[in-house]
Amino acid sequence: MQISSMPLGYNHPAILGAVANSDNHKIIANRPALGSFPGRDWPKRLKNVLLRKGVAAPGLTQITTMMCGSCSNENAFKNIFIWYADKKRHGAPFTREEMESCMINQSPGSPRYSILSFKGAFHGRTLGSLSTTHSKYIHKIDVPAFDWPIASFPEYKYPLEENVRENKKEDERCLAEIEDLIVKYDKEKNIPVAGIIIEPIQSEGGDHHASPEFFQELRKVSSKHGAALLIDEVQTGGGPTGKMWCHEHFNLESPPDVVTFSKKMQLGGYYHTPDLKPKQSYRVYNTWMGDPSKLILLEAIVNTIEKENLLNQVVRVGDYTLGKLKDLQKEVSGKINSVRGRGTFIAFDCTTPASRDEVISKLHAKGIQAGGCGVQAVRLRPALTFNEYHADIFLDALRSILKE
Amino acid sequence: MQISSMPLGYNHPAILGAVANSDNHKIIANRPALGSFPGRDWPKRLKNVLLRKGVAAPGLTQITTMMCGSCSNENAFKNIFIWYADKKRHGAPFTREEMESCMINQSPGSPRYSILSFKGAFHGRTLGSLSTTHSKYIHKIDVPAFDWPIASFPEYKYPLEENVRENKKEDERCLAEIEDLIVKYDKEKNIPVAGIIIEPIQSEGGDHHASPEFFQELRKVSSKHGAALLIDEVQTGGGPTGKMWCHEHFNLESPPDVVTFSKKMQLGGYYHTPDLKPKQSYRVYNTWMGDPSKLILLEAIVNTIEKENLLNQVVRVGDYTLGKLKDLQKEVSGKINSVRGRGTFIAFDCTTPASRDEVISKLHAKGIQAGGCGVQAVRLRPALTFNEYHADIFLDALRSILKE
Repeated sequence: MQISSMPLGYNHPAILGAVANSDNHKIIANRPALGSFPGRDWPKRLKNVLLRKGVAAPGLTQITTMMCGSCSNENAFKNIFIWYADKKRHGAPFTREEMESCMINQSPGSPRYSILSFKGAFHGRTLGSLSTTHSKYIHKIDVPAFDWPIASFPEYKYPLEENVRENKKEDERCLAEIEDLIVKYDKEKNIPVAGIIIEPIQSEGGDHHASPEFFQELRKVSSKHGAALLIDEVQTGGGPTGKMWCHEHFNLESPPDVVTFSKKMQLGGYYHTPDLKPKQSYRVYNTWMGDPSKLILLEAIVNTIEKENLLNQVVRVGDYTLGKLKDLQKEVSGKINSVRGRGTFIAFDCTTPASRDEVISKLHAKGIQAGGCGVQAVRLRPALTFNEYHADIFLDALRSILKE
Repeated sequence: MQISSMPLGYNHPAILGAVANSDNHKIIANRPALGSFPGRDWPKRLKNVLLRKGVAAPGLTQITTMMCGSCSNENAFKNIFIWYADKKRHGAPFTREEMESCMINQSPGSPRYSILSFKGAFHGRTLGSLSTTHSKYIHKIDVPAFDWPIASFPEYKYPLEENVRENKKEDERCLAEIEDLIVKYDKEKNIPVAGIIIEPIQSEGGDHHASPEFFQELRKVSSKHGAALLIDEVQTGGGPTGKMWCHEHFNLESPPDVVTFSKKMQLGGYYHTPDLKPKQSYRVYNTWMGDPSKLILLEAIVNTIEKENLLNQVVRVGDYTLGKLKDLQKEVSGKINSVRGRGTFIAFDCTTPASRDEVISKLHAKGIQAGGCGVQAVRLRPALTFNEYHADIFLDALRSILKE
């Protein structure tokens, strides 16, 4: 599904219909600079689509549209830095020294603030977002990076139900490390942590899950230290976990400060709290600030998700597929392990990177496109329209490969 | 023109026709992940549109597509860093230390390389490109930046023909400063300059021009010090200076190593030399790597530019407008100055920021959308279809405002 970016598969009639509708052709032909010259109906379109109840990330009322996942994270970082700096100067106006020093990339105008990220994370590949990406060396080598703190993401033992105590300890270890890093970077390195970025499921890094309790505590740690919590839903957002946003599974005490998205949402962007809205214009800005032609596609998509109850289908088919995969894990004992997932956002590990690549290549020969992630995981990223019939085709093919 | 991003104005029949053509609807509806799953005809489409003779930047055979101007510059930086690092290690494989240190943002894997940029420059707003942007403090304040060198861009006295000697000296001053900075950052700060980024006309910063001789020497300085030369044509590219790429006016001894684009080209991207192509896969990569639906629009645009000889029209109408503006500059002596431009990419200065804002606001009241840039400049960024009739409407309105 084009790296998890097609929510309804190919040639869905709702999307083709939106593109064929001549009312939409002028929107596709005349791309505006949304930051300065939005079309008259742009606010209404945002309300009806991205801010619609059931689509918007719960509790977040503000939306900023962008182009792709990397630039959504980069601009969300900027929103966080601007908010953090305003807190630090207690709302006072910029000093002359700040205004002048930033023009030559020096502090205090260009401050040494940081974003804390996690080992194994993937948040994009432009220079800011790449400084928070730590999934594969080939993404990062030879490219300059900011000296920002990197904490451990929980590494659980599977099956979860047999390793409850150990995995709870792992949560505690990681949370303690996060707090230590925040204090160390602030006090020792003079690089305060303005925000924390985390995926609700580390996707590119290997489909690493963390518990709702971990995320609940992370929300508290983040607030306690005055750092914004950014949940990166670029790969998990838009329905594949059975909720519109994966972090809805976590029952956080209060919403994250920022939720970024792209891929299945067709355009990039982020939801955020009113606090994070800059007080001055032109601070988070670029020529296009998104693309109304993508909102046309997204409107058809979210209408279809609602009309066809696709989130319920994802839960049902996800449970079915996960259950069958767990059965298969026992059946082929030792050949695959750590079957895990939410909705149809499912993965399992092979025993070596080579055996993983072999499984993917043999699936491919049978007409099934699957992807690898992390060191030796196979990940499933079907469209939301994936059903039991499709699951059975996949499961039969996988069984016969593993039994060979 | 939506911040110089609409080459043919609104609702051009060629663009509307391309969008209405049902052959194109599946391309708009099914956006691929171009880096891994390009459509069968994607290479042909790239050859026919972006790499077409008369469209491609002369001498550059390689194309990488992206989403917007910022991410084009960011990814071009990465290409430059990768090329530079490979030169430094004489083509040897990565060391274990490099592979491990880059995962935690530390050298040698995350090296302290830099991109040299210029005072007054604008290259985008994500964290890497923002480190090379120096046009207005509000773009930069409170956002961390890399410590990269910043050189003076020539500041000329106008009219040029009366200040030849002085302006030549200014070129020499800036070129000497560039060489000094390259040496200083390498030897004293241990932050080698891997590349130089420059606009052929500093646009957002105030429509600052530099001479062809300056750019010719810059090309030599860049090669001499082993740094790649990146010409950022995001605002100047696509025809407004009367050539497809503004740097074609400069008669460089050899082509720049990279030319980035966006805006009028509908999608982002860059042309580059074969040397800059990374030897390994997945180093410059992201989910979408551009957008075929934008190439549909661009194809209609470049066909129209050819068929209607629009580059010739830009030269003719640009000369006409520039001549009339120079006459007007004399006529209203002292009220505007430094009339300058190439093609219809024209600007003039007012005497104060306030008088500039007043001119723009009064033009607006007469139904004319003009933009400000730099401290007190008014910039013209019409579509390529702008003709003498439109120029006269603008010139009459401006004359009556300046005479009031």
